[in-house]
Amino acid sequence: MTDHLKARTELRRPPRLRPGDRVALLTPSSPSNVERIDEGIDVLRFCGLEPVEFQSARARASVHPYLAGTDEERAKDLRAALLDDSIAGVLTVGGGYGSQRMLEVMDWTGLDAVSPKVVVGYSDVTGLLEALASRLGWSSVMGPMVSEGEFRESYSFSSLWRCLASPERYGLEFPDARTLTAGIAEGVTAGGNLSLLTGSVGTSTAWTPPGGIILVEDENEDAPRTDVMLTHLRRSGYFANAAAVVAGKFTNLGESSEDEMRAVIDDRLGDLGIPVVTHANVGHGGHVQTWPIGVRARLDADARTVTFLEPPLV
Amino acid sequence: MTDHLKARTELRRPPRLRPGDRVALLTPSSPSNVERIDEGIDVLRFCGLEPVEFQSARARASVHPYLAGTDEERAKDLRAALLDDSIAGVLTVGGGYGSQRMLEVMDWTGLDAVSPKVVVGYSDVTGLLEALASRLGWSSVMGPMVSEGEFRESYSFSSLWRCLASPERYGLEFPDARTLTAGIAEGVTAGGNLSLLTGSVGTSTAWTPPGGIILVEDENEDAPRTDVMLTHLRRSGYFANAAAVVAGKFTNLGESSEDEMRAVIDDRLGDLGIPVVTHANVGHGGHVQTWPIGVRARLDADARTVTFLEPPLV
Repeated sequence: MTDHLKARTELRRPPRLRPGDRVALLTPSSPSNVERIDEGIDVLRFCGLEPVEFQSARARASVHPYLAGTDEERAKDLRAALLDDSIAGVLTVGGGYGSQRMLEVMDWTGLDAVSPKVVVGYSDVTGLLEALASRLGWSSVMGPMVSEGEFRESYSFSSLWRCLASPERYGLEFPDARTLTAGIAEGVTAGGNLSLLTGSVGTSTAWTPPGGIILVEDENEDAPRTDVMLTHLRRSGYFANAAAVVAGKFTNLGESSEDEMRAVIDDRLGDLGIPVVTHANVGHGGHVQTWPIGVRARLDADARTVTFLEPPLV
Repeated sequence: MTDHLKARTELRRPPRLRPGDRVALLTPSSPSNVERIDEGIDVLRFCGLEPVEFQSARARASVHPYLAGTDEERAKDLRAALLDDSIAGVLTVGGGYGSQRMLEVMDWTGLDAVSPKVVVGYSDVTGLLEALASRLGWSSVMGPMVSEGEFRESYSFSSLWRCLASPERYGLEFPDARTLTAGIAEGVTAGGNLSLLTGSVGTSTAWTPPGGIILVEDENEDAPRTDVMLTHLRRSGYFANAAAVVAGKFTNLGESSEDEMRAVIDDRLGDLGIPVVTHANVGHGGHVQTWPIGVRARLDADARTVTFLEPPLV
């Protein structure tokens, strides 16, 4: 276990977004759907923000078809946005692949001295949100990305916006979720996209707080692959000190049926001895709520609610 | 890093197989193609061995469609075979999914006192071969499994048989492989199926010897997923002390082209600063050679050969 994994239990929360704030648009991952970026920019302007496009936001494929520009270019964008005092937050425009490659070349020098600013994304961006926690000690926000479908849905977007702009009133309710293991637990929100969580196990950017309320979610993975990933987390000790687990909806299952996926989730999460809620609408699957990372919270697995013991942003 | 990872550099090699030897047939993974087991048994008998079927060899799905019986049943079979003095070796009948789940419930008590016996398998069985190295300090053999196609091909089977029965004459030649980075390196053979290697990073059964000559191979993974897995190994330090890398053929690429996969392999393995050979016929893809694990060897990346500095079995 690295020092990073041990050190970053209490994260520093960034300030909320306010009218007039400049926010950086960039990607750590794949080329984005550029047609959608303009619409996302309109939405942000309606909210009173001033979007600032960085080069990677509309970068096309270069090294590989699935990477926006080079790793160095994406890392440079991120570093510039984090260092720029005029930028209040970073909204990623899309996911795909490549955040963990970018982390390999990321220069963190001097970033420890920067005050936290909110960074938003999910899916492949999970890799970056973990790194912000492990390398900088920052909390962050797992929520819709500017060029992705959820950003165009009022339900998903307004959940994000409430978290970013009115964080003292933020909480999650999962009326359609299922209580796998009943109980109430307090801890620190963590986790994210399952593929990305497994892909950082054993690296310097993994982040697993003791007493975590851990989200695991994914899409486009069948039941056996999901089993392999959850087994990896189990065997690596990821759940060893967890307080509770929230599982997402797991959609687009390939050749697996919903029953098979449910059996895998129940099998791999049902014997942990901590409260577990499954089929929660966070992450992929559309119609999602935003999941702050690194914030003290209470999960009530019976009521299927998450209440925050401190605002996700300050 | 666990004690296991540090400790097991010099592995104990098992005895070669000899006429009359009893060999256990079992699986740590998915239900096997039972129609093919009988033919595999005939082949083993032609070689003078006495195959002994354990319960898991023909076990059907129980907990999940992709698991042969329960984890506990498969672990019990393996433990019984390793403890049985009348059994000279273990030949797995098939792969799929489940070896790492089985390792979660495996009881290793007392197995340290057992003399090494050869264990053969590949694909999902990579998880078990790593565990034999990290938990018991045994070398092993990555080669065809009794119910899989390669066991029915004379080329692949005779390569395995030469390794098992005439190990002092064993070596590998890859005339159709490609030299990515030239050079000659000596080290200890390691690695295996890429998905399984990444799936044990950060667990107690991972095994990465310093100075490893590391095999990475897979099938049914597209270029982006292969990138993610190689990036995970890079970021976890897997290649940090490696002497050389051998990459397999990587077949059944989904939506990726062969050129795209080649670009990923070249990108992720081409800057390691050590000799690298790619497109070697080991692992998946048919027409394969057997790859002993944990044996001192010399890779000549220009000649595309692996010569062993000690017989893989004694």
